[in-house]
Amino acid sequence: MPKISQKGLHMPASPIRKLTPFADKAKADGKKVYHLNIGQPDIETPEGMLNAIKNIDFKVWAYTPSEGTLSYRKKLVEYYNKLGYNITPDNIIVTTGGSEAITIAMMTCLDQGDEVIIPEPFYANYNGFANQTDIVVKPILSYIDNGFALPPIAEFEKVITEKTKAIIICNPNNPTGYLYSREELEALKALCLKYDLYLFSDEAYREFCYDGRTFVSPMHLDGLDDNVVVMDTVSKRYSACGARLGCLITKNKEIISTGLKFAQARLSPGMVEQIAGEAAVDTPDEYFEAVSKEYTERRDTLVNALNQMDGVYCPNPGGAFYVVAKLPIDNADKFCQWMLESFSHDNQTVMMAPATGFYSSPGAGANEVRMAYVLNNNDLSKAMECLAEGLKQYPGRTL
Amino acid sequence: MPKISQKGLHMPASPIRKLTPFADKAKADGKKVYHLNIGQPDIETPEGMLNAIKNIDFKVWAYTPSEGTLSYRKKLVEYYNKLGYNITPDNIIVTTGGSEAITIAMMTCLDQGDEVIIPEPFYANYNGFANQTDIVVKPILSYIDNGFALPPIAEFEKVITEKTKAIIICNPNNPTGYLYSREELEALKALCLKYDLYLFSDEAYREFCYDGRTFVSPMHLDGLDDNVVVMDTVSKRYSACGARLGCLITKNKEIISTGLKFAQARLSPGMVEQIAGEAAVDTPDEYFEAVSKEYTERRDTLVNALNQMDGVYCPNPGGAFYVVAKLPIDNADKFCQWMLESFSHDNQTVMMAPATGFYSSPGAGANEVRMAYVLNNNDLSKAMECLAEGLKQYPGRTL
Repeated sequence: MPKISQKGLHMPASPIRKLTPFADKAKADGKKVYHLNIGQPDIETPEGMLNAIKNIDFKVWAYTPSEGTLSYRKKLVEYYNKLGYNITPDNIIVTTGGSEAITIAMMTCLDQGDEVIIPEPFYANYNGFANQTDIVVKPILSYIDNGFALPPIAEFEKVITEKTKAIIICNPNNPTGYLYSREELEALKALCLKYDLYLFSDEAYREFCYDGRTFVSPMHLDGLDDNVVVMDTVSKRYSACGARLGCLITKNKEIISTGLKFAQARLSPGMVEQIAGEAAVDTPDEYFEAVSKEYTERRDTLVNALNQMDGVYCPNPGGAFYVVAKLPIDNADKFCQWMLESFSHDNQTVMMAPATGFYSSPGAGANEVRMAYVLNNNDLSKAMECLAEGLKQYPGRTL
Repeated sequence: MPKISQKGLHMPASPIRKLTPFADKAKADGKKVYHLNIGQPDIETPEGMLNAIKNIDFKVWAYTPSEGTLSYRKKLVEYYNKLGYNITPDNIIVTTGGSEAITIAMMTCLDQGDEVIIPEPFYANYNGFANQTDIVVKPILSYIDNGFALPPIAEFEKVITEKTKAIIICNPNNPTGYLYSREELEALKALCLKYDLYLFSDEAYREFCYDGRTFVSPMHLDGLDDNVVVMDTVSKRYSACGARLGCLITKNKEIISTGLKFAQARLSPGMVEQIAGEAAVDTPDEYFEAVSKEYTERRDTLVNALNQMDGVYCPNPGGAFYVVAKLPIDNADKFCQWMLESFSHDNQTVMMAPATGFYSSPGAGANEVRMAYVLNNNDLSKAMECLAEGLKQYPGRTL
């Protein structure tokens, strides 16, 4: 029997899925499981987007251009230029989800052994994509005590080597919900210019900024056009995760022309998705206002409930729909598994993602969990009751 | 300005697209261009598949499982088991087009520097995917004189090294249309078992076998379960290239569990596509019969017209919807460009793909072109008139 690749063996399993067998078992045993482990929102997809699918009138489901249809890219320009990105259709490659925008950016800009710096905790799949493209992730710690703010620039400089080619930020952040300020982005800009680094900006959660906060993108900064690559997706913006429609945006023409060669090899992004994506840009403001209100309430429900529990600390994040909370526990992996395997409260329990999966540094996040507030307020409250009760009963409690 | 990756610089441009600027210019000049350069069929997508899209009734366009929905995989099992593949849903990972099935297979089975043997001419994007995954393509020549039959096994053995991990076949073949016989597949089986190699079987054109020929897959061979990986797509089967829906099939459990880690990193294949794909399996036989009749006629039109031209030779292929023809020309790249740039016949011309792009061996295919018979008979005849006239006028004619 031929051997599996080393790359395959080293490919990390998804941290949000590794407890799935225990959740399945709990459900088979008749327990109700509240899923806070995965960023699949329950929010409805905008009607205009779904209607665009229902109203397709083509006869041949054909390839589109590898860079995406001009029509969709023009519509995206309309969307991004309202945000002040000042781009043209030539600055966009339409991708199969944000995932492909990330892998194309990595392959286009980094070679085997090249290093990318990422503040941790970070979106776990960056590890997978880095393994896939043979690049090396250099994590630098951010801390729950200051709400996971950008680490000091000196910390970045400590890990910069000849191999360092890029920095990845996810803003607002998954998993922490932290929203980077203009000052933090300006500091990153200076760093990128000083060391000639790419700045990859994962903006999947751009629409989710709370309490009147303003989203700032590296696209808003002057003099950084050749360095910035935005990796975007419609997944969260329109609650359309299953659309697999994203894009890569950059004003660096070499990245576009080189990235396009990778895009051409895989032929085309989805055609129906682009039709739906075009309609999505016309989603009325009321949709986003209602969603923002809903998420703000959920965040408040979650954060308030968490901070009322003994020994628990959860910063109040400015964006996205995640929180990372510190719990009085010995080991987040054990605890999350125990909640599914050995605990129930009124025959209910909650599934969370151990934060360890979002850190690269060994041991980091051992007493932290990530929760996605993708359930309604009522379910979130019940999930918090379960968690409070679970923390009281958990044998590995440290308080 | 930071530097583009070496991988990006080495990424081959698509050979079917490199003449696009000349085609665009020809069209801008008012010429009618017959596109035989790309495998985008004009055949209508089955109505049932399109209706499935129009009838979607979900409210949230959500992620599906990374391996694809159980419902779609069960339906695929129905389709494949009618062909005698004898598989279960656990043998399938649903992918974003056949392209992703290829990259997942490559990353799962081969490491950097590992070698894959491919009879050439071959589907040009294998080169791109190999560059992307840092693996090395070892081409072995097949020849137009015997219709591009499988090269003798001794030719494979000549290039086998310690690094050889896999063989790729595309059956029926793109670009040659050659359909491998059971005997040829049995010979490959013996080779793969002898040297412990994976056999990747790209079966995108499985439904397109002509003149009563039978398609044989490595899945039909006994004792090769751990070696065979089928890479498939709905693109050509249902004329649904823009769906970006494919799958990887193998009975090797290690490939499934490892491949799934790559699939999990990118989260999910498209949801709407899987709904449509499920409906597609119920496409009535009449659809395929009509399509097969249509393609057989087109092939005959093309092959007959070609072989009537002085100095032209085109084998009559058993499958797919491509031919490779030998022309009395000095240089296929120059000729194809000249046809767009400097030639017209009744203000019309034809765009073909120089076969050089489908060979890895330097100089091979210099007097060959690939044509896809994806236009109706009438247009094909007109395209052949243009070609015949072009060959008479071309300054680099060798006859």
